[in-house]
Amino acid sequence: MPEKRELGRGVAIVGAGMSKFGMFEDKDSKDLFAEAFKEMLSSVDKGIDPERIEAMWIGNFSNDFFVHQAHWGPIISDLLGLAPRAATRTEGACAASTLAFRDGVMAIASGLYDVVLVGGVEEMSKCTTEEVTEGLALATSPYEGAAAFTFPGVFGALATAYFDKYGATREDLMNITIKSHNNAPLNPKAQFNKTIADLMQAKIKKAEERGKPVPSWGSEKEALGDPRFNPPVAWPMFLYDCCPISDGASCMLLVAEDMAGEFTDKPIYMAGMGQGSGRALHASPSLTSFEANKHAAAEAYAMSGLEPKDIQFSEVHDCFSIAELIHIEDLGFFKPGEGYKAVAEGATKLDGPMPINTSGGLKCKGHPVGATGVAQMFEVWKQLREEAGERQIPGRDLRVGGAQNLGGTGGTCTFTILERR
Amino acid sequence: MPEKRELGRGVAIVGAGMSKFGMFEDKDSKDLFAEAFKEMLSSVDKGIDPERIEAMWIGNFSNDFFVHQAHWGPIISDLLGLAPRAATRTEGACAASTLAFRDGVMAIASGLYDVVLVGGVEEMSKCTTEEVTEGLALATSPYEGAAAFTFPGVFGALATAYFDKYGATREDLMNITIKSHNNAPLNPKAQFNKTIADLMQAKIKKAEERGKPVPSWGSEKEALGDPRFNPPVAWPMFLYDCCPISDGASCMLLVAEDMAGEFTDKPIYMAGMGQGSGRALHASPSLTSFEANKHAAAEAYAMSGLEPKDIQFSEVHDCFSIAELIHIEDLGFFKPGEGYKAVAEGATKLDGPMPINTSGGLKCKGHPVGATGVAQMFEVWKQLREEAGERQIPGRDLRVGGAQNLGGTGGTCTFTILERR
Repeated sequence: MPEKRELGRGVAIVGAGMSKFGMFEDKDSKDLFAEAFKEMLSSVDKGIDPERIEAMWIGNFSNDFFVHQAHWGPIISDLLGLAPRAATRTEGACAASTLAFRDGVMAIASGLYDVVLVGGVEEMSKCTTEEVTEGLALATSPYEGAAAFTFPGVFGALATAYFDKYGATREDLMNITIKSHNNAPLNPKAQFNKTIADLMQAKIKKAEERGKPVPSWGSEKEALGDPRFNPPVAWPMFLYDCCPISDGASCMLLVAEDMAGEFTDKPIYMAGMGQGSGRALHASPSLTSFEANKHAAAEAYAMSGLEPKDIQFSEVHDCFSIAELIHIEDLGFFKPGEGYKAVAEGATKLDGPMPINTSGGLKCKGHPVGATGVAQMFEVWKQLREEAGERQIPGRDLRVGGAQNLGGTGGTCTFTILERR
Repeated sequence: MPEKRELGRGVAIVGAGMSKFGMFEDKDSKDLFAEAFKEMLSSVDKGIDPERIEAMWIGNFSNDFFVHQAHWGPIISDLLGLAPRAATRTEGACAASTLAFRDGVMAIASGLYDVVLVGGVEEMSKCTTEEVTEGLALATSPYEGAAAFTFPGVFGALATAYFDKYGATREDLMNITIKSHNNAPLNPKAQFNKTIADLMQAKIKKAEERGKPVPSWGSEKEALGDPRFNPPVAWPMFLYDCCPISDGASCMLLVAEDMAGEFTDKPIYMAGMGQGSGRALHASPSLTSFEANKHAAAEAYAMSGLEPKDIQFSEVHDCFSIAELIHIEDLGFFKPGEGYKAVAEGATKLDGPMPINTSGGLKCKGHPVGATGVAQMFEVWKQLREEAGERQIPGRDLRVGGAQNLGGTGGTCTFTILERR
């Protein structure tokens, strides 16, 4: 168990922005980051002169692979007019931008800088689906990738292990998908903005219009159980268990806690953060839990002095539906093997006792991998500031929210706790 | 001019290691990092239990491209038995591992961790020369790469600009090459270990033995001026102006300054560090200086309270001979346009007043790009501890050394000042 660590200085978030997520033929990484940066600037209640930004950290998984360009630190600092100030890229697969956030926090806490930009970007949709699968497989352990054990297969195996150990079924995963699709239409930046019910009705209507056989789906789960609606990818991962290919960017402005009042009267504070690294899957102690998740959570709880019961809502890394189940148990929100039951009872819905992925999650909001970590925190920032619009968690005095980010098959796990005081 | 910043806690280096650099058919990134890590462990005078290492940062430019594998944080933490502890990859082109070093320093200075491993690795020789050129071009600005303006051409252009502005010639660059080749045979880890004089004599002898026309080279410069010995790459960059393709790894153990005595009675302290980012070359204010270099140097000098005249020796990033000239001027060791004259007078030789690249530099020691930054600091550590063997700078009480690392065409520049107290 990590000991409690006090940072030299506290760190506050005083601005945040994210681009719309999606597949954009006409936007590149620079366009997307500019979109996020502009929103961040306008989100700073009392304004920010970009000249005050002293350094930046940017997460990117592998634009090396996706668009044949690395070294994104100076490209983005040049774009934003921040050069010659320091710009560092971090990479931890799909957790890349949380690592940028962490480094930015440390830079301020260490006394090196007072005002720091952190963010992430990824541009994936210029590749074919096959290329993206190959590119993402660069983030698996060398043992997995070399065996052609790409992510849908890996997470299918984890789901199978979870089913076997705890008695869950595909229906339990469908609950997660349906919930994410219910939240997403409330998020104007989400890549997908239709509920499963709407998608189902649209398919039925289309069949009727074309005079084709009309599917007799009486419920969303019946539709999700029909391979015409939801084809298999790697059993038991079907299409609607998998997040999409996305482009997007996200960023946040971090400042020393004692300076926050210069920028806003509604700062959000970094209360605790943890990070763990995982062993290759064949050497992992469990297939229904990530060791690195637990390490990250323990660090974050120790730093914040908070416990799982204190976290009022959380974004978690639902690259596949099964991942959401694993995370909400690893973080201690639910006991091992109990998460799927709580989900079935509606615990993680927007109006449930423990809302998870109010943004729509990676499944619906989209997953431009390098942008995702800070985008999760963007959602927590929005909720804590009561600026989440239609998807604002109702009837709660929100004080503490979490963001859990995953890279690879548990290779990198982070948990970050944000707080409004 | 950056203001002076005090870190929350000082940071000491108490161990350092690097693999042999070279082109290794039979070693991969894990083998190389293990080699560096083992040496680091044995370099800690009072010993270190690896269980005490709380987190790691590892620099890697693009093993994504070179060996089709990303996400090196957890791969290396797993290899070393550090999982589930945090492992983050940093990337800033050829400055990747200095960024890891910086993040490790901040992690300790912030109070987050007390004992941190930093390092870097790159595995390039499995690619063809053409592939390496393509891979490295991922680190140019998008404007340069898209125009097929790869690094030899870019640095050729910088050399041409320097020649034009200051009246230097190819002979001035030869002085740098000859000096590096004189230092390298004294470094058992260097990729190339022969002086230009030895290489020249060997070629003459070979011609004699084969009964072929014997070149009438009376001096090293005559040999370097002959395209049979030193063919052109991108004028005025000839083969011996260019660093090689290399594999290798490097690492260091960082601890909170007040804990250093637990590990060694000869710690080396991080006295100052700076980082800058650069604009694309066509938008840079100068072709004979990197703006990011000057920003990095100003930050490092401000933090350390030191001036250029206080730096007794330095490693600088001589990916191409012209780069060494630019750096020694940008860092303030010599005035703009004066560096080449000082070099001609022998100022930067091992026994000169300002030894530069006692390791042999990237030119001869090798340049596994992600490993280079920490490998430069490894040399400074060796010199400051008077453990550099045959290449120990003679007759000097060494207290302060520098390490300057470059990524891209000035995209990322760092300067780090290490000190023995």
